[in-house]
Parts: sequence; structure tokens; C-alpha cells
Amino acid sequence: MTVKAYGAHAGDQPLVSMDITRRAPGAHDVQISIAFCGVCHSDLHTVRSEWAGTQYPCVPGHEIVGRVTAVGAHVSRHKVGDLVGVGCIVDSCQHCDDCDDGLENYCTSMVGTYNGPTADQPGWTMGGYSEQIVVHERYVLHISHPEHQLAAVAPLLCAGITTYSPLRHWHAGPGKKVGVVGIGGLGHMGIKLAHAMGAHVVAFTTSASKREVAKALGADDVVVSRNAEEMAAHARSFDFILNTVAAPHDLDAFLVLLKRDGTMTLVGAPATPHPSPQVFNLIMQRRTLAGSMIGGIPETQEMLDFCARHNIVADIELIRADEINAAYERMLKGDVKYRFVIDNASLAA
Amino acid sequence: MTVKAYGAHAGDQPLVSMDITRRAPGAHDVQISIAFCGVCHSDLHTVRSEWAGTQYPCVPGHEIVGRVTAVGAHVSRHKVGDLVGVGCIVDSCQHCDDCDDGLENYCTSMVGTYNGPTADQPGWTMGGYSEQIVVHERYVLHISHPEHQLAAVAPLLCAGITTYSPLRHWHAGPGKKVGVVGIGGLGHMGIKLAHAMGAHVVAFTTSASKREVAKALGADDVVVSRNAEEMAAHARSFDFILNTVAAPHDLDAFLVLLKRDGTMTLVGAPATPHPSPQVFNLIMQRRTLAGSMIGGIPETQEMLDFCARHNIVADIELIRADEINAAYERMLKGDVKYRFVIDNASLAA
Ligand SMILES: [Zn+2]
Ligand SMILES: [Zn+2]
Ligand SMILES: [Zn+2]
Ligand SMILES: [Zn+2]
Repeated sequence: MTVKAYGAHAGDQPLVSMDITRRAPGAHDVQISIAFCGVCHSDLHTVRSEWAGTQYPCVPGHEIVGRVTAVGAHVSRHKVGDLVGVGCIVDSCQHCDDCDDGLENYCTSMVGTYNGPTADQPGWTMGGYSEQIVVHERYVLHISHPEHQLAAVAPLLCAGITTYSPLRHWHAGPGKKVGVVGIGGLGHMGIKLAHAMGAHVVAFTTSASKREVAKALGADDVVVSRNAEEMAAHARSFDFILNTVAAPHDLDAFLVLLKRDGTMTLVGAPATPHPSPQVFNLIMQRRTLAGSMIGGIPETQEMLDFCARHNIVADIELIRADEINAAYERMLKGDVKYRFVIDNASLAA
Repeated sequence: MTVKAYGAHAGDQPLVSMDITRRAPGAHDVQISIAFCGVCHSDLHTVRSEWAGTQYPCVPGHEIVGRVTAVGAHVSRHKVGDLVGVGCIVDSCQHCDDCDDGLENYCTSMVGTYNGPTADQPGWTMGGYSEQIVVHERYVLHISHPEHQLAAVAPLLCAGITTYSPLRHWHAGPGKKVGVVGIGGLGHMGIKLAHAMGAHVVAFTTSASKREVAKALGADDVVVSRNAEEMAAHARSFDFILNTVAAPHDLDAFLVLLKRDGTMTLVGAPATPHPSPQVFNLIMQRRTLAGSMIGGIPETQEMLDFCARHNIVADIELIRADEINAAYERMLKGDVKYRFVIDNASLAA
């Protein structure tokens, strides 16, 4: 089946309208008419070949929401008409320890929603900047938010789970002091989620102008990270810091804010390394520096249900598909509050 | 009371015999006649002013074993004649969360056994390269090893607890694959302890010549870290890696050997930073990089009892006090298997 999509033919070219093919649904497949797709920084990195290995044409997008239009004979989890989502993962080995533990995101055979190996034509996966997608039922999530929130649900599939998973894994909740570094696509979700989990949330920003918006998102306190005095007032006080900033920066400034046995988890990988953190800051209070990547499928479902229950969605700016190149430029400047979402109906135009 | 000691009058001078004073035991104090004192790299760093803040004269030594010669009126834990040890800590605030949790090593008011602030003359603590020491009973450990092992017990007070504490904290034990990087004073204890805890122990060394000795210490397997093929064979397989190497080195080579949710803990702080680790290696398998510093007093007692039960002591080379400067030079070349220990009886000579 041929469907409309938006993608790039090369790393140095803008995204344009194109036709791509989708497989006919197999026995375990779910065919989805995509209503909206969030725009993630990974989309931009991949489509512009800023990471190694991009194959062209490249159609990005892994914050996908829509409605089921067909299901294979053996599909039991989803039915035609359901509101569903697809995140960063569309396949994995399904039999390793990671898959068995519901942590398909760490399976070494995990297949990304775009630019991942597949038997489908042309040999790599095509993402959510398209009218339709066909995905194995295991990787399709139920959405229980009301339909009018659907566009704002889309970013939960990457930005939401990428922040939810580490917050849960490192036990954000009542009685815990949790920091969130960076107030962007990931950070604004981190603040909302940590707040809903019941933690005392402190947002870190480089810009004093974000104080009020961070509080509106759910932060109990806001620290301007360039202000040494403000930072020092929080020394050795955090149980957990979720660091969403991918740009290289001084990790030590945040490590010293962790209490004994505290953890700072990075969810963004910088293109060039951060300055090397001082081992001394880890040793002195038995602190840990960790990383976390997206989340597993069961946890993604848990996150979506949690967000529906707590009425949490992303703050978004809805765009047409043909606005995507301009949106990338604005995203690079941090000029979006806080996530662009493509209205996929505009692909047909 | 005046006692014989060995120390330095300046960072660029050799250690020499000197007289120092010890306070009369207070109500909670234990007076100890020091039999042996292990020689730690920290001694050398401090006495040579390689770390900031050394005050002179400086008498190092924090791997102290000996016999109780007097106790204060309120001392209940120790009595005259007991075999006891003193490690890196001789005081702390005794009322913070860290102290309450028995983690005096993380108390911000922790006082080191040498070069730490004290009301005693001359204003900073003097360590175990001396005939006697007077220490608050809280920081004095019972030794249940047979007396003939006493010299080899000394290094347990720093090298032992520094490796035991992280091994316990990160759950080394049956069913766990544990790596130990570096086979020196710390590493040789790490191998012995992890083996006794029941873990599958892999020793990492830069030198193929250490294969057999590592196995003799208790390693189930030995990997020459410069051999890329040997390293690759262990990719994503370790639950925990204890890294005892303080010299700056490539952490990524070891991080990629951790399985999902694995931890590498550093117990040595390099004088210049390690090359910055790749965030990608943390994110991909939710790995963590941590630090750990010595251990608390209750855990030090637990470690000593564990070692007595498992007949574990350090491998040592006994020296006279007047051999200490030569011993430092050999230590810098890694020419010691694996810990120098001073026979403190030689101080009287
Ligand atoms: Zn993403
Ligand atoms: Zn798998
Ligand atoms: Zn030491
Ligand atoms: Zn304390």
C-alpha cells in the first residue's frame, strides 16, 4: 500500500512530500491511520545524518497516535477503531532477558520506528510523518485519554516515556526531592510527571525568564543554574536529578547537589562529550551518574494510563507537515513550548 | 604523652623519626599501642602535598592494628588487652543522618586519622606511623583474627573496607559476575573479598604476567584489558565492576562490559580527570557509574568479622619504619605484593 509521507532524500536536503509503501498487515500486525506525530530532536539528528547510519529516503517520527484501521488474524490486544499509539520501538527479538522483562528498549535487536532494519521495503523502517503505519501488536499502545487531547498525547510516546521511566526506576515520589535539568520537550514532561508522582520538584534552567512557566508546569522551586548562590543553597539535597540537556555542560555543578546515594540520570547523549565529571564528587557521597533510554512497552502503557488518570498531556504547537523544516529551525533555537506536533491530515494536501 | 613517630616536616622532604604527643585518654577514649600500620597510597599523596591542605609535621598511616593499653571511664566496647584496629576515621559529628546510619565515612564532619582537624596539639591528627594512638571508642574496631595474622590484618582497615563496602552495597554474591580492575593494594583485596562473597570474579589487569597471581587470589577468570578481543568476549556481561585504578584511563572500555542496569564503581580519584565517558554507553543499557569512599564503622566491623571467618588477610611485605621512603618509591612503581606494612616496634630503634 502506498501512503503519503514527509521525509528527506539526503542529509543536506529539506524534508519534502513523498510516497512510501506499507506492508499489508500480517497475523500479528495492527494497521494504524496516523492522526498526529510529535517532532523529536532525534528526528532532526537522524534526518540530517548528524548520527551515523541514516539511510535515505528517511521518514522520521516516533511519537505516533491514531486509530486502528485493520488488524491481523491473531491480534488480540487491539481492535479496529481503537485509539492507539506507537513510540520509538516497532520490533525486538521477543525472547531475550530484556524482552522477557518488558524492557524491549534495551534489547540489542530493538528496531527503531524509523531508520531501523526491517524485511519491509526498502529495508529500513519509516516513521510517523506519514498517513499510515503497520506495527506488530506488541509495540502498539492503548490510549485512554479523551480524543480531543490526542495531538497533545503524541509526545508522551517518546518525551513522556523517556522521562517517566527513569523517574520511576529511581523512585521519584512523595518525600523525594527531584531535580529536572532543562525545560524543553523532555524537561517539561519530566516536571509534570515528577510532580504528579508526588515528588518535591526543582526545575533547573539557564534562563531566569522560565521561572514562572516552570512553576506553572508543576515545579515547586526553580533554580537558575548560572547563579552559583542559588545552586549552593541546594548542595547535597537531591535524591534524584533527571538531566534532559543533551548539549555538553558541566555535570559537576549538578552532581554536588545530590545527597549521599543520590543519582543523576542523563537522558540525552551529547554530540561531543560533556567535560569529564570529577570522580571526587562521585566518591565523596557515593553518588551515581546513570543513563536511561526511552522505556519498555509495558512501562509505556503504564505511563499512558498514569497520564490519562492525572490528566497529563504535553504542551504542544500543532503544525502542518509542510511546516516541518521551519519547525526544525525553531526547535534548534529552543523556540517551541514545548513540542511541535504534526497534524497528519495535512499530508494529504 | 610523647611517643615516637615517623613523618615529614615538609612535602619535599623524606619521612624521618620524630616525637609527637598523644592526649591522655578521655572518658570515651581508647589508648592503643600500635603493633603494625599498613602503607596506603593516600599516605604518600598527603605527606608529599599532592593533595591540597597538608599540614606539617605530617605523620601518615590509617591501617592501624594494635592492643588496648588504657580505656576511659565510660568506654564499654573495648578493654585493656584487646586486639583492635583503627582505620581512616577517628571522629565525626555523631548526630547527622550519615552518622546515624553508621556511614560516618560520608559525614561532612568526618575527621581523618591524619591531617584532620582536632582539638589535640598541634591542631591536626597524626596517624599510625607512631607507637601509640588515642581514639574515641566509636571508631575503634575489634579484631578477631588470630594474633599471628595481625600485621596482615592492618590493610583491611583501609584497602579492605574500601573494597568490601561497594561490593556489599552493589550486592556482589552468588550468581553475580563481578569485575575487579587493577591488582594492587585495593584490587587484591577486592578479588579476595568478592570471591569469598560467592561472586564469579573476573580480574582485569594491563599485564598478562599477573594472570596466575590473580587466579591465586581468587579470580575465576583474568582479562588483559589491553587485549581488545579478550575484552569484547565479556561485553554486556557484568553485574558490577569495582574499579580500583586511580590513574586516568578509558572508562568506556569497562562500561561496555556491564550488562543492563550494571554499575561500575570507582574507588580511586585520579589527579587529573579520566577521559570523559561516553554518555551513550550509560544510556544504552541503563548503566551507572558510581563512586564509593572507604566504609562506615559498623560495616568495617562486619568486614573484619567476615575476613576472620573466611580467613582473609592482605598479602603484605613487612618493613621497618626507616624503610618507608624506599617503600614509597617501590609503591610508585607498583613493586609490592600487595601492601607494605610497618612493624611499629621498629619506631623505638
Ligand atoms: Zn524521540
Ligand atoms: Zn530482545
Ligand atoms: Zn588508605
Ligand atoms: Zn555526622
